[in-house]
Amino acid sequence: MPRLTAGVDLGGTKIQTVLLRDQQVVGSARMLTPQTGADAVIAAIVDSVKASIAAAGARTAGLAAIGVGSPGTIDAEAGSVGHSPNVPGFEGDPVLVGPAISRALGGVEVKLDNDVRVAVLGEWKRGAGRPYHDLLGVFVGTGVGGGLVLGGELREGMGAAGEIGHTIVKDGGRRCGCGRRGCVEAYAGRARIEATARSWDRRGRPTKLFDVMRKRGRDRVTSGAIAEALQRRDEVTIQLVDDAVWALGLALANAQNLLDLEAIIVGGGLGDRLGQPFVQRVERRASRYLHVPERPPRFLPTELGDLSGAVGAAVLAGG
Amino acid sequence: MPRLTAGVDLGGTKIQTVLLRDQQVVGSARMLTPQTGADAVIAAIVDSVKASIAAAGARTAGLAAIGVGSPGTIDAEAGSVGHSPNVPGFEGDPVLVGPAISRALGGVEVKLDNDVRVAVLGEWKRGAGRPYHDLLGVFVGTGVGGGLVLGGELREGMGAAGEIGHTIVKDGGRRCGCGRRGCVEAYAGRARIEATARSWDRRGRPTKLFDVMRKRGRDRVTSGAIAEALQRRDEVTIQLVDDAVWALGLALANAQNLLDLEAIIVGGGLGDRLGQPFVQRVERRASRYLHVPERPPRFLPTELGDLSGAVGAAVLAGG
Repeated sequence: MPRLTAGVDLGGTKIQTVLLRDQQVVGSARMLTPQTGADAVIAAIVDSVKASIAAAGARTAGLAAIGVGSPGTIDAEAGSVGHSPNVPGFEGDPVLVGPAISRALGGVEVKLDNDVRVAVLGEWKRGAGRPYHDLLGVFVGTGVGGGLVLGGELREGMGAAGEIGHTIVKDGGRRCGCGRRGCVEAYAGRARIEATARSWDRRGRPTKLFDVMRKRGRDRVTSGAIAEALQRRDEVTIQLVDDAVWALGLALANAQNLLDLEAIIVGGGLGDRLGQPFVQRVERRASRYLHVPERPPRFLPTELGDLSGAVGAAVLAGG
Repeated sequence: MPRLTAGVDLGGTKIQTVLLRDQQVVGSARMLTPQTGADAVIAAIVDSVKASIAAAGARTAGLAAIGVGSPGTIDAEAGSVGHSPNVPGFEGDPVLVGPAISRALGGVEVKLDNDVRVAVLGEWKRGAGRPYHDLLGVFVGTGVGGGLVLGGELREGMGAAGEIGHTIVKDGGRRCGCGRRGCVEAYAGRARIEATARSWDRRGRPTKLFDVMRKRGRDRVTSGAIAEALQRRDEVTIQLVDDAVWALGLALANAQNLLDLEAIIVGGGLGDRLGQPFVQRVERRASRYLHVPERPPRFLPTELGDLSGAVGAAVLAGG
């Protein structure tokens, strides 16, 4: 009987789960992340694993292992997650997620790792990064995360490698969520794009971005709203996306100059939503700054889209 | 009988050679690089190897292997060097340096690699980098070169990894020798520091730097001249060194944010000359930009100083 492996991508707003059999996604499930605490989140993860098994027409008894990708501080050995400000119940001291999920599912093995690292693992092993052994994955979403594969190994460093989002592209530039100024994330992360648009709006530089947001019934400027405002040729949005392209282009060129990579994969909520044209613009911008422009890396969109993390989590668990 | 290994650091102005026995430098020799062509340079390398053997009171017959670090494009297999604009006779098509040296020294094995890579190898295996398996070596001289050790391996990438000197720290900033603007090298490389001082001087911002240079009987602003002008509190030199500290601090912090290294070693002609106080200033500057400031890399001066390259070349040859 072929081995079944589940992968869970735990986020602040949603839980995405896939079920792999023979390296193929045979079932998946997505649900909103409960906002009522750690126990509810753990129960939701268990439900989502069961739902993805049901979706595949398989049985829980056949499940070999579960991988979980989570934001925050991960202790892979203990199976705990802590200091994850966006996941309700996980903001503080470590919670033993792994053992709890295992108990609820008959003692199945559970592996944990950082959400961005598992997303890079997913794209590397099952997505756009398959042909390469030296690559950088950049996930442009609410923030900007990244992870490196170097010499065919996912790089750990002392635990914090791959923070391309906090490359400073302009000393003294736009304020970032991390408290410093001029990070890539301050220009390309969805949350800072929204904050900058609000600030410009207040200072008399109007934008259609918030009309689009309201029309979509949202109270946040989603990636979809940014894409729509861009299509409507809203000047502020055009400027903000230009700035994001510039910041990503510069930071990725600097990473390339230092690391001489084979490929750079651009994904994440905003990256996936703006898609290939956005990735091409980033590539063109980066090429201006490359020290060896005649041998650039390939710039690629993700292949797995918003499943990169869940698939990577399943790969982590041996799927 | 213990094995003898020679290491040669070939530069545009000097050839530095060391002889290693039991991993210790037991002899060394230094000479000016002939300016009359490839044959003269090869003969000088052979002489310098013989001189270092003589200095150690050893005999040529005991020599097991020679390593050579050179600027330019290296073909390690063929033993050739080409496209090295600063070494007379090596500016154009590849010259078979390795076989020529080997013939002149009784068929001894000769290994070649890039000058910056062997310098990193020297500091990693025999110098300040010994305790680490993840480090960046930065050599601040006429230009700014760098090399990476990641996971206990000297990183090659597609052949051009480690170009920290061409990290862009200010888009549209100072012109660099590479043709782009705002590279680290445009702020911290000796040649661009000199060019900037000349340009400011012409535009009415006087400096003692050129008086110091002439007093020293030189027609170039050497690292020694920069150090002396700094000591004399020359305002332009203070500003230029501040700028170099800023550029290095920002670029090294960005490298750290991406790679999560254990150590950063700062050397090169200017880095070694300005020494520990300069390295500490770079460290303090970098710490402002670190994403995980509570776990910074160690910032270290070189241990081997201007022998990093020659010792590393000997290590390359098995010494």
